[in-house]
Amino acid sequence: METATETPWLTAAEQQIWRSFLGGTIVLNDRLDRDLRTAHGLSMPEYEILVRLSEAPDRSIRMAELAAAVSHSRSRVTHTIARLEREGLVFRGQCSEDGRGVSAVMTDKGFARLEEAAHTHVRGVHSYLVDNASPEEFAVLGQIMQRVITQLGGQC
Amino acid sequence: METATETPWLTAAEQQIWRSFLGGTIVLNDRLDRDLRTAHGLSMPEYEILVRLSEAPDRSIRMAELAAAVSHSRSRVTHTIARLEREGLVFRGQCSEDGRGVSAVMTDKGFARLEEAAHTHVRGVHSYLVDNASPEEFAVLGQIMQRVITQLGGQC
Repeated sequence: METATETPWLTAAEQQIWRSFLGGTIVLNDRLDRDLRTAHGLSMPEYEILVRLSEAPDRSIRMAELAAAVSHSRSRVTHTIARLEREGLVFRGQCSEDGRGVSAVMTDKGFARLEEAAHTHVRGVHSYLVDNASPEEFAVLGQIMQRVITQLGGQC
Repeated sequence: METATETPWLTAAEQQIWRSFLGGTIVLNDRLDRDLRTAHGLSMPEYEILVRLSEAPDRSIRMAELAAAVSHSRSRVTHTIARLEREGLVFRGQCSEDGRGVSAVMTDKGFARLEEAAHTHVRGVHSYLVDNASPEEFAVLGQIMQRVITQLGGQC
């Protein structure tokens, strides 16, 4: 008799890869986060938000769009923006275009802080991740993760 | 004149892959976490800790070793274990062997909860990650992340 479940248990090899993935992403994010905090007083989520703002027209993004862009919850982004605002790196204001919704806007001080922090962050990404893969391997990593986003992105 | 910095800026393609990696790991972990919470009242970090305990001799691991095994900070593991203890899934006690340090021990109730939750979790890992890669691609993912752990693991 087989059990009713059809759970596709992982093979030992798959389990090992899954654990490497979990453990690797944790130590990578912890290290990038620690490097940014130590050198620039920014967390990784704060850094990511500053990057998105720096690339937006008028360095301004609606709060709801910002949450979607960095794949964080709305409440988490609100909390992060509040902290960046206290440091004078962003401010919140009404959208000028249509008067609907609140936007986060990056200040000149925020842009300057990002420019400094980018050196630390990019050096870390290179040294801890890019340099640990051949260009072909790195491309495979991107393809897999892009498929994950395509599958799950719209459901979060 | 070149600037003094030697920061190895990412190419557009590398930047895209890095963003897919960041975004993909976030939506994947969020979804696995949500599936476990909804169906079994467990978070991903709680699930990981139960897995490690289930595999240990006497289903018991010293708190310090547990933190290292799941790549979480000691304070975070203490907090997670306290919550699992309130639910009766683990308890904390002195190590019987040598009387040194405190261990987390999984209860039968904890083991039963893990057995149920494992179906949900493994189905998710398969559907959201393994099935998004060929076996060769999945192996590449594991190799890259294992190198990251080897490089950074001892420093966190």
